[in-house]
Amino acid sequence: MPVPTPNLYPAFNTVRLSHVEFGVRDLARSRAFYVDTLGLQVTDEDANTIYLRALEERGHHSIILRKSDRAEAKELGFKVYDEENLDRAAAFFAGKDLPVSWVKRPYQGRTFLTRDPQGIPLEFYAKMDRLPPIHQQYSLYKGVKPLRIDHFNCFSPNVDEAVAFWNEIGFRVTEYTEDAESGRLWAAWTHRKGGVHDLAFTNGTGPRLHHTAFWVPTPLNIIDLLDLMSTTGWLANIERGPGRHGISNAFFLYIRDPDGHRIEIYCSDYQTVDPDLEPIRWDLKDPQRQTLWGAPAPRSWFEEGSVFAGAALKESDLKATPIVAP
Amino acid sequence: MPVPTPNLYPAFNTVRLSHVEFGVRDLARSRAFYVDTLGLQVTDEDANTIYLRALEERGHHSIILRKSDRAEAKELGFKVYDEENLDRAAAFFAGKDLPVSWVKRPYQGRTFLTRDPQGIPLEFYAKMDRLPPIHQQYSLYKGVKPLRIDHFNCFSPNVDEAVAFWNEIGFRVTEYTEDAESGRLWAAWTHRKGGVHDLAFTNGTGPRLHHTAFWVPTPLNIIDLLDLMSTTGWLANIERGPGRHGISNAFFLYIRDPDGHRIEIYCSDYQTVDPDLEPIRWDLKDPQRQTLWGAPAPRSWFEEGSVFAGAALKESDLKATPIVAP
Amino acid sequence: MPVPTPNLYPAFNTVRLSHVEFGVRDLARSRAFYVDTLGLQVTDEDANTIYLRALEERGHHSIILRKSDRAEAKELGFKVYDEENLDRAAAFFAGKDLPVSWVKRPYQGRTFLTRDPQGIPLEFYAKMDRLPPIHQQYSLYKGVKPLRIDHFNCFSPNVDEAVAFWNEIGFRVTEYTEDAESGRLWAAWTHRKGGVHDLAFTNGTGPRLHHTAFWVPTPLNIIDLLDLMSTTGWLANIERGPGRHGISNAFFLYIRDPDGHRIEIYCSDYQTVDPDLEPIRWDLKDPQRQTLWGAPAPRSWFEEGSVFAGAALKESDLKATPIVAP
Amino acid sequence: MPVPTPNLYPAFNTVRLSHVEFGVRDLARSRAFYVDTLGLQVTDEDANTIYLRALEERGHHSIILRKSDRAEAKELGFKVYDEENLDRAAAFFAGKDLPVSWVKRPYQGRTFLTRDPQGIPLEFYAKMDRLPPIHQQYSLYKGVKPLRIDHFNCFSPNVDEAVAFWNEIGFRVTEYTEDAESGRLWAAWTHRKGGVHDLAFTNGTGPRLHHTAFWVPTPLNIIDLLDLMSTTGWLANIERGPGRHGISNAFFLYIRDPDGHRIEIYCSDYQTVDPDLEPIRWDLKDPQRQTLWGAPAPRSWFEEGSVFAGAALKESDLKATPIVAP
Repeated sequence: MPVPTPNLYPAFNTVRLSHVEFGVRDLARSRAFYVDTLGLQVTDEDANTIYLRALEERGHHSIILRKSDRAEAKELGFKVYDEENLDRAAAFFAGKDLPVSWVKRPYQGRTFLTRDPQGIPLEFYAKMDRLPPIHQQYSLYKGVKPLRIDHFNCFSPNVDEAVAFWNEIGFRVTEYTEDAESGRLWAAWTHRKGGVHDLAFTNGTGPRLHHTAFWVPTPLNIIDLLDLMSTTGWLANIERGPGRHGISNAFFLYIRDPDGHRIEIYCSDYQTVDPDLEPIRWDLKDPQRQTLWGAPAPRSWFEEGSVFAGAALKESDLKATPIVAP
Repeated sequence: MPVPTPNLYPAFNTVRLSHVEFGVRDLARSRAFYVDTLGLQVTDEDANTIYLRALEERGHHSIILRKSDRAEAKELGFKVYDEENLDRAAAFFAGKDLPVSWVKRPYQGRTFLTRDPQGIPLEFYAKMDRLPPIHQQYSLYKGVKPLRIDHFNCFSPNVDEAVAFWNEIGFRVTEYTEDAESGRLWAAWTHRKGGVHDLAFTNGTGPRLHHTAFWVPTPLNIIDLLDLMSTTGWLANIERGPGRHGISNAFFLYIRDPDGHRIEIYCSDYQTVDPDLEPIRWDLKDPQRQTLWGAPAPRSWFEEGSVFAGAALKESDLKATPIVAP
Repeated sequence: MPVPTPNLYPAFNTVRLSHVEFGVRDLARSRAFYVDTLGLQVTDEDANTIYLRALEERGHHSIILRKSDRAEAKELGFKVYDEENLDRAAAFFAGKDLPVSWVKRPYQGRTFLTRDPQGIPLEFYAKMDRLPPIHQQYSLYKGVKPLRIDHFNCFSPNVDEAVAFWNEIGFRVTEYTEDAESGRLWAAWTHRKGGVHDLAFTNGTGPRLHHTAFWVPTPLNIIDLLDLMSTTGWLANIERGPGRHGISNAFFLYIRDPDGHRIEIYCSDYQTVDPDLEPIRWDLKDPQRQTLWGAPAPRSWFEEGSVFAGAALKESDLKATPIVAP
Repeated sequence: MPVPTPNLYPAFNTVRLSHVEFGVRDLARSRAFYVDTLGLQVTDEDANTIYLRALEERGHHSIILRKSDRAEAKELGFKVYDEENLDRAAAFFAGKDLPVSWVKRPYQGRTFLTRDPQGIPLEFYAKMDRLPPIHQQYSLYKGVKPLRIDHFNCFSPNVDEAVAFWNEIGFRVTEYTEDAESGRLWAAWTHRKGGVHDLAFTNGTGPRLHHTAFWVPTPLNIIDLLDLMSTTGWLANIERGPGRHGISNAFFLYIRDPDGHRIEIYCSDYQTVDPDLEPIRWDLKDPQRQTLWGAPAPRSWFEEGSVFAGAALKESDLKATPIVAP
């Protein structure tokens, strides 16, 4: 099994993924997508920036849209357990000779930037401004009724190495795809917060951000979003779905924002809090790993992703076994 | 507009589509599909025949499976208002020089066979054995929870002629696709019972039965069926969907039975009882007419259908404008 | 059986229930209820009147709100098949010595007013202005996503007589409650358009309008409405439900508008187009006839209703067998 | 605020609630309830005992039914992080002068029994036999499609003391009801696994088990269960709901098993993994804390609960402010 033994006592305690900032070229158009169509809530905005949260989130932001010349992804944000764990996290990254710089971030407490070994820009903090709950203000529920940010999924040129690193800091593998011929990982899903993933990696030129996912209550919310997007000018932004993944068991939809950043709408995965949860293995040649049922994914879904600011791209040396569409 | 003026006073009153018989080569395998997977209820069966009804139907059967060497469709069954209307129906067909033969059908009252001008075998009756209601026996609800047969859809080599005939007997057009170049009908949906259709025609080599549809309560039942079929050996029988049609607004799924007979699972169309309901026109070149959203239909969906017993096939002279996938 | 034999050939052909006008004392408050909360669409409005339609309706209005000193219900509106049937309808009522007066109604063609023998004010027409379809403008779907008006339910001091009259004009009984001791009808559901009812009667001081129902796609829409109403100041307007009726099998919710007019939100009844559909009998003492499951109805639901303009009230001489709450 | 500061570094790490054993008087009848009606999966059974798991659980059991003369609840089971934490847990309880006895439990590793200070019998373990995943064997999904055990709720004669103890071992309060007059806790919800609760306490004669909850995918599954129970002889076992709680925001249904043990079917609460999650305060006099919408709870729901084996009952000295039904 190419999956490392889970590290149950990592150097620091990460609670969950937290947020990401997207560089977007037309802030009004992005607002129409994220706010008017998806239904995320604006927590602050000015001429250059919009902060958004989902309906059950109490942290100030899970998506930041920043006007930019480049459609790129900035740091992936993670929340750690407390300030002590934040210091231990910084020490851990520094001890790996990875860059650590403390920065000031609006609405966040002490925050440092770093990168993982493959170059993904990261941001860790322990405290973010907390907002009053709105999950029972049902007049705010619109669009797909997004409840919370669920996970990031990244292209990685070497999934084995990516998983080894994140496993060391406590991200436990829940499911994985193995390339049976080489015995190497093709893809892996790793979690902190008790769902199938906070962070997943898929083999490919990277690092790039494949998608950011939001969790919604039921499949019907996804169907509502499809109805809305297909009749309000967003039809071309629907990329893949609806369908059910074999991996994670999630009912999914993939859409693209006006800059091509991919958003997954996601529900029905399962609870993974048991530290002895056995990872589920999938064979790369099993078409149901990706699509338990549903139409095959289009080429764009396999190939396109958001570049990370300042990250050098590298091709994978693990070549795809030809994909057999279901 | 290529749609004829509705005939509000047809020669006889057809209540609704009623049933169809399928020739199937392996009765046990067909039973596994229709009963164990879809959840239709057996009302009678012997070594050669299975009679089925859906959960809110009180007539004895809406699907008959008959062991056969040939995977073909037999007569499409229709229920008329009463015995007087049945006689008027027989007289109407005879008056058009169409064949009329009275037959004995188990569980049905007086029944005659005939064909429409394009050769589709038809069966008309006024009375069928009535069974006790089971729609509140919720322990019977399984599979996709099929509530009632909803419509037939047929390939027709000349949709204009087919619609002209069925309009004369009171089947009112609710929506249609026009080939703008030729001004001819590419497809049309016609109803008696107050939904978008009892009977639809699509241009193509015919007559052939494209599909038979069952109505289910909500899109979630269709998702349940997809989950079930994809994990019980029926994955390859899922042909198209889920998605929403532009035409009819229905949330749909198309599946194939073991003999290739196509079944549509269908919900969310709308009420059409107003005699002055204006038909909705779609342009053949509008990809949203077929797929408001959802993956493009596979080639099999456009090309394959069940042959009708004893019906000579004819090619259409109306050639498809190249289909633009959405 | 106290249910009359259905009249399959009534003197005129009624298509369906159509609309009702409510006298309301605070038009802005009623707009907040019907438009902002339920999600009905305004088709016209001025200082005194608001016309509303549901999302799949193409007729101009199904609810009219009219500023008034009195919270009363005006004529129940019905659509007949064509102008010829309208004349036959007028002749029928005149022949019964019921008042017939032709009136001008905005957005309607020829229209006459009359009353049924128990005094319910009625309005019949064949043509109403038709509006473009909006059922695929999904950005308009809000609140409970009301699709169409479904039925009226009235208190009647003599349900046997009411049913006898409406049966004569073709309203077929689908289900009924019998008072086993007297052999009389306690309540009955009658239809024209192929659902469980267009018009129902329940024993009680009357005539009064018990409720007007709208059909919605799924039970989840009703749950969404409950969430919305309970967190936007309308909690006290929720009267009964959610639950499932034994009769009609409908999933239901009853709410009261700001003037106390009762609205039912309703889905999951069944198709009744067969002219030989056997009415389902319920015993008055069976608590599941009202509530297959769900909390018992409050006293207000049994006792309160909207008075009809100009209708003299009469008590019923059929006294309730004590109601056994489930 | 009567809620203690969360103990972010408890003496041992509890992962989640795990299981409970019920004494039942008629095993076949209980099997009909839990297996045939709710849809739990049998993982082992003999003449006296049935082990059950829900559909996404991989541990061997979450409910044990044991034939007994008494309808009582046995130990509430909790899973700790690993064997080291198990030893620390035992030491913690022993250090509080609470009874600790190591026992052999089928399908579990090292397990000790103890009680909390109010006398609730408890069972801690780190390892339970793991079974193959079945969450994608959709042919097994029946009844209410229970996915996992979610929480226990107990009557406590002193909620302040109960919360103080469980907070010390890391159970963090997510929501609570305060009796404003006395400043004392009326009820509190505490979690380990990232939902609103693993364990809740409500003021009342105790300790008694108020209910055990299972998590289901959507509200429609709960409606399906209501349809099923109300038509298969279980109508009287439906106690309260459906409705939505203010506290936890859950869509709920309460049912009683054949011995009166109360089961909650539950969905739509929210994620609580943030260690700085602010508890939500509810006033005891706010009727929406219990019922955001829905019928008032019956008296039985307030008063009845399962006794714990060997636990002495004590009345609460905190008397209920009269409950105002919504």
